[in-house]
Amino acid sequence: MKRIAFVMVAVVALGGAIASMTPASGQANGEDAGPIFVKVIPPGYRDWKVVSVAHEAGDLNDIRAVLGNDIAIKAYREGKLPFPEGAIVGRIAWSYVASEENNKIFGREQSFVAGSPTDTYLQFMVKDSKKYAATGGWGYSSFDKDGKPSDEAAMTSCFPCHQAIKGRDFVFSRYTR
Amino acid sequence: MKRIAFVMVAVVALGGAIASMTPASGQANGEDAGPIFVKVIPPGYRDWKVVSVAHEAGDLNDIRAVLGNDIAIKAYREGKLPFPEGAIVGRIAWSYVASEENNKIFGREQSFVAGSPTDTYLQFMVKDSKKYAATGGWGYSSFDKDGKPSDEAAMTSCFPCHQAIKGRDFVFSRYTR
Repeated sequence: MKRIAFVMVAVVALGGAIASMTPASGQANGEDAGPIFVKVIPPGYRDWKVVSVAHEAGDLNDIRAVLGNDIAIKAYREGKLPFPEGAIVGRIAWSYVASEENNKIFGREQSFVAGSPTDTYLQFMVKDSKKYAATGGWGYSSFDKDGKPSDEAAMTSCFPCHQAIKGRDFVFSRYTR
Repeated sequence: MKRIAFVMVAVVALGGAIASMTPASGQANGEDAGPIFVKVIPPGYRDWKVVSVAHEAGDLNDIRAVLGNDIAIKAYREGKLPFPEGAIVGRIAWSYVASEENNKIFGREQSFVAGSPTDTYLQFMVKDSKKYAATGGWGYSSFDKDGKPSDEAAMTSCFPCHQAIKGRDFVFSRYTR
């Protein structure tokens, strides 16, 4: 799920089903309208349990919490693959910023914290084997801080990278205990 | 709460009440026995909601999830200070490791993920204004991956740093939306 925004080259082999989609906007409460696009932010995601945390340096330059809904967390903890229907793995990405406050208090330049939401603030992958059969059974989504979904071209770049980890049901993040 | 292990110089002004403590060990199910020491890992902490995430570079070299129990999260979200009695803010710290897997897939050296538990894997600060009056109303705790609490000298180093952020009720981490 990481790098959806980063891999901008759309290496797509999904057929033409996405051609006629109209991106949702605003609160992202639109209905899902295609085989790989999820246009609704899963309600309550900010209350979900932690899968792990990560830092993406380089152009992304974010720090992120990877979360899962109850179905996903249960599967993670039990080591069950593939993930069951209804599992959702999400991540929140904030800008990666040095904490001047912390560094001053501790007398060292070493504390990095979460700043403002990034351009691809929220990303989710939703398991629905039938609906998203063309992309490994997962639908992908990405939203900015205002809830606006990323455009179609960006979203078609998800699966080509996730394909590389088919052995873990296409999910990058491992659950860390 | 960050840096409890790092600031090893015990700048203590807590009186002699901690002198006779015996560190607990093993599963850390011992009773709390002093004014600044919490020796029981709060049950269910791994299910708590996310306050924020951070990376401590340098000697700590960790990546961490800061979590809160329901009382703490409610206060954070409502912007209420001081935190109410019973609030617990915790953090899980994993070693900060480059993800060769991710980097290979994405063709760039920029992905850092959570590895194994650090020496101060779990840390919590527990709000009890009476019990922990000498340390700003918070009791501090730190545990390794086996649930063994950090030793007394290390724990006395918590409050001197937390004192610097009295204006936010001694809690370093801000809630990130």
